[in-house]
Amino acid sequence: MASRVALIQGASRGLGLEFCKHILKNKSPAAVIATCRNPDGATELRALADQHPGQVTVLRLDVSREEDICGAADRVKESFGRLDLIVNSAAMLHPSGKGETSLREVTAQGIISTLTTNTVGPLVMAKYFAPLLQKGGGSFGQQPAEKAKQHSGIIVNITAKVGSIGDNGGYRMSKAALNMATRNLSIELGRSRPKVVCVCLHPGTVNTDLSRPYHRNVPKEKLFSTEQSVSALMNIIETLSIEKTGKAYNWDGTELPW
Amino acid sequence: MASRVALIQGASRGLGLEFCKHILKNKSPAAVIATCRNPDGATELRALADQHPGQVTVLRLDVSREEDICGAADRVKESFGRLDLIVNSAAMLHPSGKGETSLREVTAQGIISTLTTNTVGPLVMAKYFAPLLQKGGGSFGQQPAEKAKQHSGIIVNITAKVGSIGDNGGYRMSKAALNMATRNLSIELGRSRPKVVCVCLHPGTVNTDLSRPYHRNVPKEKLFSTEQSVSALMNIIETLSIEKTGKAYNWDGTELPW
Ligand SMILES: NC(=O)c1ccc[n+]([C@@H]2O[C@H](COP(=O)([O-])OP(=O)(O)OC[C@H]3O[C@@H](n4cnc5c(N)ncnc54)[C@H](OP(=O)(O)O)[C@@H]3O)[C@@H](O)[C@H]2O)c1
Ligand SMILES: NC(=O)c1ccc[n+]([C@@H]2O[C@H](COP(=O)([O-])OP(=O)(O)OC[C@H]3O[C@@H](n4cnc5c(N)ncnc54)[C@H](OP(=O)(O)O)[C@@H]3O)[C@@H](O)[C@H]2O)c1
Repeated sequence: MASRVALIQGASRGLGLEFCKHILKNKSPAAVIATCRNPDGATELRALADQHPGQVTVLRLDVSREEDICGAADRVKESFGRLDLIVNSAAMLHPSGKGETSLREVTAQGIISTLTTNTVGPLVMAKYFAPLLQKGGGSFGQQPAEKAKQHSGIIVNITAKVGSIGDNGGYRMSKAALNMATRNLSIELGRSRPKVVCVCLHPGTVNTDLSRPYHRNVPKEKLFSTEQSVSALMNIIETLSIEKTGKAYNWDGTELPW
Repeated sequence: MASRVALIQGASRGLGLEFCKHILKNKSPAAVIATCRNPDGATELRALADQHPGQVTVLRLDVSREEDICGAADRVKESFGRLDLIVNSAAMLHPSGKGETSLREVTAQGIISTLTTNTVGPLVMAKYFAPLLQKGGGSFGQQPAEKAKQHSGIIVNITAKVGSIGDNGGYRMSKAALNMATRNLSIELGRSRPKVVCVCLHPGTVNTDLSRPYHRNVPKEKLFSTEQSVSALMNIIETLSIEKTGKAYNWDGTELPW
């Protein structure tokens, strides 16, 4: 049995896919549950699964559909019975792939879609997966000696530092709300034992499809590869403990103001 | 013609209704456009309109429906051609009227409804009414002598200070996102002339239906009447200028951290 079980939500591309690669390469033995909304289209993820037979479980999960999340949690419960880490990585700037640049471009439907995927999704993930994280072995992060302070699992929500990506509409709002949701979660899941650590991490500006509309505004040396970003974020994850719950951290480990 | 035109969104009850009363009583001559989702059921508002013939225009507007907002803006444009103040007051704790008290009670649909009314609504209001506010006479707030710094209109979004009402779910998230939306708006609408001032105001804990689930946790002297709260908030509104845009203020005028 794998000594660590991690679930990466939004694993078809970008940072989510890189988290899967990183864990398989550096945290073995580990079981990776990789969720995405269209496994058939996720060719890189499927190739990764083939390279690591028996280690990767790909599940179909559209984070904007509560029934998908509920179903995936049932599957993980049956197959693993527990979870040590969840990374919620899926997000969009706007359904069109381009953030609104002015108020005129704002539509209720666009903002609601963005909020549904970026904010509501991670919260509903926590609802269904918290019981499995509470059964986790706490094998990611750092455990203090004192038993009462040890955690069983970790929730990482990938946020975006305000202003790191210029935007006038839904994306920035969705991340402000996600930060608040994560803080609320950290209170509820940190109160009793077993404790689940809940944090937000900002990955820097990373060379992925999501940030493409902004690449030309970013000096080359400040545009991270997914490898650079995920390796920095995993370093932070490995320092997490219940003392650090409820906060947001930048890729360099510094705490971000809410 | 009225020297001031104010639109109160969410005017059927609570603070919204009190804003209408306050303006009619203290800011005359003023035209009040009072919007609510069900004018037939809003008996107090209709009575108020009858008491002030020719001063109150009641419009049907469900803030979760973009077409209602668009239609109301057309009506205001035809009848008044401009606007000096918008107060977005409508909000809910949760469609059930009771905020989620634990993660188990969270549903995607509940959170999305709450975000749609509390957060997306005010942003879509800004989209359709900004052109009218840009034609406003700036008759609320304080105008500096320097012409380039004068504002034509004001948007007030009623927010809630984090922690003022205990809650684990959508409400607090919706207000964090509203604060961010207001900040984004203030940048876009403060950049060029004519300038629109955009702020969030926290009304304190006020004796209304919305806060009812929490009244027993609030010491009596800290539970404001709607009159007390609105009179404090109108005092703040009358001090607003472009220098104060993009911020959140408590009912006592102190600035709230974002
Ligand atoms: N890249 C940056 O510079 C940057 C900066 C700050 C924060 N972030 C954050 O980092 C995280 C990862 O972004 P990224 O840069 O890796 O973006 P990306 O390469 O565009 O990947 C986005 C991922 O989200 C998935 N997704 C979108 N909607 C979904 C849904 N409803 N259900 C399930 N999956 C969905 C996509 O799946 P499909 O393949 O099915 O479309 C894709 O796997 C996001 O939270 C983003 O906000 C990124
Ligand atoms: N009361 C407090 O202690 C307190 C504290 C902090 C912040 N606030 C904020 O103050 C504001 C006013 O709240 P309140 O205390 O006056 O609440 P309230 O008495 O419960 O009134 C809520 C108002 O919102 C309207 N509304 C709800 N959904 C709507 C929709 N989709 N479209 C249009 N109108 C809708 C209601 O209309 P119907 O009559 O049609 O239902 C009602 O007029 C809110 O933004 C609230 O978050 C209140």
